[in-house]
Amino acid sequence: MQWISDKEILIVGLGLMGGSYAKALTRLGFRVCAIDRDEKAIDFAVLHGYIASGSTEPDPELIGQADAVIFALYPAAFVDWIESYQHLLKPGAYVTDVTGVKAPVVDRIQTMLRKDVEFIAAHPMAGREVSGVQNADERIFLGANYIVVPTARNTPEAIAWCQSLGRLLGFGKISLLSPKQHDEMIGFVSQLTHCIAIALMTCNDNRHLADYTGDSFRDLTRISRINETMWSELFLQNRDELVRQIDRFTKELTAIRDLIAKQDREGLMDKMRLSTERRAYFDR
Amino acid sequence: MQWISDKEILIVGLGLMGGSYAKALTRLGFRVCAIDRDEKAIDFAVLHGYIASGSTEPDPELIGQADAVIFALYPAAFVDWIESYQHLLKPGAYVTDVTGVKAPVVDRIQTMLRKDVEFIAAHPMAGREVSGVQNADERIFLGANYIVVPTARNTPEAIAWCQSLGRLLGFGKISLLSPKQHDEMIGFVSQLTHCIAIALMTCNDNRHLADYTGDSFRDLTRISRINETMWSELFLQNRDELVRQIDRFTKELTAIRDLIAKQDREGLMDKMRLSTERRAYFDR
Repeated sequence: MQWISDKEILIVGLGLMGGSYAKALTRLGFRVCAIDRDEKAIDFAVLHGYIASGSTEPDPELIGQADAVIFALYPAAFVDWIESYQHLLKPGAYVTDVTGVKAPVVDRIQTMLRKDVEFIAAHPMAGREVSGVQNADERIFLGANYIVVPTARNTPEAIAWCQSLGRLLGFGKISLLSPKQHDEMIGFVSQLTHCIAIALMTCNDNRHLADYTGDSFRDLTRISRINETMWSELFLQNRDELVRQIDRFTKELTAIRDLIAKQDREGLMDKMRLSTERRAYFDR
Repeated sequence: MQWISDKEILIVGLGLMGGSYAKALTRLGFRVCAIDRDEKAIDFAVLHGYIASGSTEPDPELIGQADAVIFALYPAAFVDWIESYQHLLKPGAYVTDVTGVKAPVVDRIQTMLRKDVEFIAAHPMAGREVSGVQNADERIFLGANYIVVPTARNTPEAIAWCQSLGRLLGFGKISLLSPKQHDEMIGFVSQLTHCIAIALMTCNDNRHLADYTGDSFRDLTRISRINETMWSELFLQNRDELVRQIDRFTKELTAIRDLIAKQDREGLMDKMRLSTERRAYFDR
């Protein structure tokens, strides 16, 4: 399948991410439809021209005409949807997703999926601290990282198609990772950082500190405004890896704490020099 | 002393903060001089009109003519300077500072200082990840928090003078805290967050992750590019409080880890809801 604009795209799950995909792909000239249980989300997206049409039900016609289906659901809902409605997918369709955890989802879906449909997993590393199609914003993709997560079951054509989707949406760096590599990476850079931000807000009643704080604390806790339904599911789907990441981080923070307690200034400065050196790689 | 522009101000320590104070105060019409060991810093500031004149030595004339002296040195260097050169200060002068830790510094200086000179401590909650007068930027003050840290030894006049300095520089919220309250607050909002950022960078060799990460990780580690000489001194000056803050945070992060390990989704969602609710107070 080529990215030519006479192709039909279906978005399943019209929240912040699904809505942002819809906006971007409609602007690029595709005919985009959507399915979401929330009628207000569909109405909003039609009214604002993000989608050509939509349904609150798994409409066989909408599903059957889509050359590509993009799932922007929570992990368990995505698996359930495929289980219930995959018979409605168009033969030869490509399926992709935006799910934030891969190993458990990709394996289950690729195992059960019809052989005439291909699922190629992806994770757009973009988001906002707000949710819903009303906050859809395709600019969150620009320059962000996009990760394609193939397995041995994927064809080179589907992988290339998924990479080109990332490029079309405006992502900066487009990478390939295996599901296991993805979940290790995401456990560290995303899930661990969210756990830290939450713990900073819940470890004491700090509301009165807003008058005193500088930018450091604001930066570290920006992501502590969190969609608890989505993130608790993501954390639990990746729990072994996340627990391992928290344990490794805690061990290192404790090592720094011990340097402070025993007044080992040289040891502390060594940690800071390493930190400064490594952080330079993340500037862009 | 009133803030009228025929008054002379001396900055001791012409780095990022001292330089930013100098720029702002010169623009406001004060005659600003500076002392810094680094001749290049003095030359740069004179050349760019941040200061009227400067010296690499504790010049008795520069010091003796200043109605206000602002110390932008590291804590130990500040204490040493007062010990060695306080006899040169003008009778009736006000002394203030930008030091990031208060209890140990304020008590030592107020105890030893001449009775005809008053030290009123302050902490401007502003900064950058770069250092040196070459990076001085008075815009870092605009809307930021400014904390005046008086003790029972301070006069109402000096406290009011220090508050008006914060207002003149463009700070947003100007607050009063005791040295102990300040050090508790700073241990949490600033020092703990810097320890976390460092530990995120040093807990594994994560440089290759730059291609995959989203904004969360960048936000949480921005401050991990750190001036190791300054921050190791600040950490050690406040070590009991900082160790207490790290321990409390680690306990909470471990509680979240345990909720994940035992798949307690309700417990996790409770933490996230509390976190979301509290974080709203920090938006501005």
